[in-house]
Amino acid sequence: MIDGVKQQKWWGWGEERISYQHADKPKFAPFVMKLTGVDVNAPVGPLPKLTDFEVPASILSDDLRARLVTILGETYVQTDDETRVVHGYGKGVRDLMKVRAGDFGRLPDVVVYPGTAEEVAGVVDAVVEANGVLIPFGGGSNIVAALEAVPGEARQVVSVNLGRMRKVLEIDEQSGLAHIEAGVFGPDMEEQLQARGWTMGHQPDSFEWSTLGGWIATRSSGMQSDKYGDIADICRGLTMVMPGRVLTLRPLPSTSSGPSVREMVLGSEGRLGIITSAWVNVHRVPAVREIQAYFFPTYEAGLKACEQIVASDASVMMARVSDDVETQYIMANGKQSSKVSSLVSKGIQKLMVAKGWDLEKIAMSFIGFEGSPNHVNYEKGLVGKIVRANGGLGVGKGPGALYDQKKYDTPYLRDFMLDHGMVCDVSETSTPWRYAAEIHTRTVAAVNQALDEIGKRGVVFCHLSHSYHSGACQYFTFAIADDSPSAMASYDHVKRAIQQSFMDFHGTVSHHHGVGEEHAPWLEQDISPAGVFIQKALFDGVDPGQNLNPGKIIHEGRPGISPNSADA
Amino acid sequence: MIDGVKQQKWWGWGEERISYQHADKPKFAPFVMKLTGVDVNAPVGPLPKLTDFEVPASILSDDLRARLVTILGETYVQTDDETRVVHGYGKGVRDLMKVRAGDFGRLPDVVVYPGTAEEVAGVVDAVVEANGVLIPFGGGSNIVAALEAVPGEARQVVSVNLGRMRKVLEIDEQSGLAHIEAGVFGPDMEEQLQARGWTMGHQPDSFEWSTLGGWIATRSSGMQSDKYGDIADICRGLTMVMPGRVLTLRPLPSTSSGPSVREMVLGSEGRLGIITSAWVNVHRVPAVREIQAYFFPTYEAGLKACEQIVASDASVMMARVSDDVETQYIMANGKQSSKVSSLVSKGIQKLMVAKGWDLEKIAMSFIGFEGSPNHVNYEKGLVGKIVRANGGLGVGKGPGALYDQKKYDTPYLRDFMLDHGMVCDVSETSTPWRYAAEIHTRTVAAVNQALDEIGKRGVVFCHLSHSYHSGACQYFTFAIADDSPSAMASYDHVKRAIQQSFMDFHGTVSHHHGVGEEHAPWLEQDISPAGVFIQKALFDGVDPGQNLNPGKIIHEGRPGISPNSADA
Repeated sequence: MIDGVKQQKWWGWGEERISYQHADKPKFAPFVMKLTGVDVNAPVGPLPKLTDFEVPASILSDDLRARLVTILGETYVQTDDETRVVHGYGKGVRDLMKVRAGDFGRLPDVVVYPGTAEEVAGVVDAVVEANGVLIPFGGGSNIVAALEAVPGEARQVVSVNLGRMRKVLEIDEQSGLAHIEAGVFGPDMEEQLQARGWTMGHQPDSFEWSTLGGWIATRSSGMQSDKYGDIADICRGLTMVMPGRVLTLRPLPSTSSGPSVREMVLGSEGRLGIITSAWVNVHRVPAVREIQAYFFPTYEAGLKACEQIVASDASVMMARVSDDVETQYIMANGKQSSKVSSLVSKGIQKLMVAKGWDLEKIAMSFIGFEGSPNHVNYEKGLVGKIVRANGGLGVGKGPGALYDQKKYDTPYLRDFMLDHGMVCDVSETSTPWRYAAEIHTRTVAAVNQALDEIGKRGVVFCHLSHSYHSGACQYFTFAIADDSPSAMASYDHVKRAIQQSFMDFHGTVSHHHGVGEEHAPWLEQDISPAGVFIQKALFDGVDPGQNLNPGKIIHEGRPGISPNSADA
Repeated sequence: MIDGVKQQKWWGWGEERISYQHADKPKFAPFVMKLTGVDVNAPVGPLPKLTDFEVPASILSDDLRARLVTILGETYVQTDDETRVVHGYGKGVRDLMKVRAGDFGRLPDVVVYPGTAEEVAGVVDAVVEANGVLIPFGGGSNIVAALEAVPGEARQVVSVNLGRMRKVLEIDEQSGLAHIEAGVFGPDMEEQLQARGWTMGHQPDSFEWSTLGGWIATRSSGMQSDKYGDIADICRGLTMVMPGRVLTLRPLPSTSSGPSVREMVLGSEGRLGIITSAWVNVHRVPAVREIQAYFFPTYEAGLKACEQIVASDASVMMARVSDDVETQYIMANGKQSSKVSSLVSKGIQKLMVAKGWDLEKIAMSFIGFEGSPNHVNYEKGLVGKIVRANGGLGVGKGPGALYDQKKYDTPYLRDFMLDHGMVCDVSETSTPWRYAAEIHTRTVAAVNQALDEIGKRGVVFCHLSHSYHSGACQYFTFAIADDSPSAMASYDHVKRAIQQSFMDFHGTVSHHHGVGEEHAPWLEQDISPAGVFIQKALFDGVDPGQNLNPGKIIHEGRPGISPNSADA
């Protein structure tokens, strides 16, 4: 470990010592068996060792190495196999399938660990002068192939790990702004902020293994975005190192200084430069924070309630509703003794039956409230009325507290399922409210049809994750039972179906994971060919030599899945 | 008038039949006399007639005229002097000084009035093919010189008036979205929306003479932005005609499809294309709308209250606080019988004196509330506590109702003052809360020093106009008593001082008026040289032939005031 820079497993999510367990969740194995035919109690083979594979050699030149060592020192210029492999991919399921099979793609030739913005500038200028390629690296949790070099890249590839740059530099308490280095991981950042009574309130699923710089570079959203905003709202200023220059955008609440350069950096995925620090909105830790659980007779009723909440006088911190299958999944994934199961299995369940609900169709919802005790009560009152008007039922704080504890665990489950021959992934989209119910129905159907077409069993479920005045994000999880050599082709087929459904039914290619290489084939359908033309003009103008993470967002004639081609 | 397209006076703001009157405001003349020495009762000379001047001839070629007529028909291709003069400038005080002196600059050679996006596309392609210059025109209310052709422009200049495109095309009632043509003026748009129970809630000062497309092109903000957002929040999708292509951004609540193309169009001032329609957030007209008036002992106390309101659980529709001089101005500009004067002149005034307030230092505030009757009462309760904690005093709804009626009248007063030899203008900036009080003090001092330096009397005052989590916009009005031939140089000197103060004390070059040519000299100080480099890469990549409103936002080697040069 370099200077305390945390590093994930080379073959999976998170830390070596943590993995998903289901021994205390007796409903889980039957649930998976019923939906997919996969036996999660079956023994699994040993994981591969990195030494089982031949790792492609680095082509770092002595000249460039010497320059990087001069700037950073020996310790911070790494070329060993494991470091290069960890930095060669993100953590999408496609990445894990490749890396576990020893398909390392075009690994970086060197991983550097600058400690200051000045060192980043030195690295950028040295690499561009050598006509190399720069790929910024935060937590390595990207799932849209934004961290891989272009296959066959003949130039030297340099992965720039920002992990040493992780300090909260300053809190402007009067303005509610903090200046923070870009390489900080979520928990480290919140610990530094909360020690002084502040929070950023940004909680993406990847929180434990993603960084401020990564959030900005991909336009991330957190679970509490209904109150705190997406990262595009939270990030008010930033510093980005570019070849031969440094962009400095001061923290400003709003401005009309021409097209927003801040918004051009947001979502730029390394194509304009390397973000080294940002000014972000921070808030006083609220007096009360409460996540209430509700049940609706159907997912559609839950969607309608969320739509009405944003149109009402209420201001909630989060509003999440799971569809029928995800609700069953949540209950199956609960510990025997947990309040989720116990609440649902006794009085509440009887009440639902008495109401005539189909227990296979119920939708679980978590709605969060923050503020003074009086304000939380006021908001709960406003929301309660809307829930009841849509046939919903409040079940108290217990399940919400459990959700809050477990909210970052899903990627470990994803890896566990992959061990058991099941390819699981997520993809999310946003639409206006008008299309919210339809895109859900259509996308579930599209996944099921795609599974039929390849003759595989699997499952798809969804929750509404973020609400806005005019619409919402829906977040789909899908799994394919396939441990055959063609599992990647199966994945491509289903992933293609889900993305095309998003495009066909008024959604975005992505709501908060970005474009990378994975979603690039759909970008013209999303923002129109003229939109891609405008982005390309920006990238080409800023980076005519294609030194800055080329091939991401817009890739021209690149391999990969395509909406129009047959399966790879 | 072409097909009901409203047109402003060629020499001033708004309609011919409307002008500022002060006969019923007995305190106004003494107030102006006291602060500036100008006698607004003195007779003024007649306004110039357009026929007094020689209007530069159009250089429109027969070829291009023929193509435009083929696309649009004769009626919609205008080359008469008055139409060209009206379209040659915005309505900044500099524009009025120039045009009243017969300095018409580089007028457009032709004004066209397309009726559909397809006609706009035809015009754009014809003009670019002829290597002409395209300048989109909405209400003509721009005050940062965004509508003028570059002096000495040798190519044909075509002003594209969008005024025939003014329909609300569709309201998506479920999503709270409306699709609206870009050429619609504020009142026409709200009338169409409110007839169906909806409002956009966007109320810039220019509302009566500005258009949806203009708001988007300049990143406008309205008085109610604390609730409804700036136009950058309101505008969720749009259509923009570009040479040889059309950008179509569907309405989406949020997305991570790479750097936001929507945000690149916002604030682009015609440099990327011509916006023809937009999808905007619309809201149900609220059950209750109330503007409450408050007084604070000082402006600083009012600023602090606004800062605390945004950090609290309250969500107001607007919060406005005027500094001491603006408060005196509001009271002097009230009708004798109006509630503003009467409230302040009797019981309230006694109460203030009893509290030990200096009546020359008091700050008037308007805070707006919307929602159900119960919600408005709840919010007023939250705000009332904060007001009292900062020594403030509520004075009820009367003054707020008056403010609401008169809020769009200021530009007529500006023209009246110009008639009386007084150059008045506005400039606004946003900062984090930390710098809000300081930038106010410093900017007032900078204006007064600039007036001293040129030996002129004048006045400057300010209000906080828009609040955000991390800061606020402050909106300065300044006036210079100068009817000499060097009035423009006086204006330049004061305007330069105010803009430089914004830069020196952590502000933006503009909060919602845009950059144009007027603010371009400060852009590098605002967004850093690398920010300007990025914007230039975008403009040059999209418009290599510089056919799209060149010279705006970034002007290279252009004449004009500069932060570093001596007075022109």
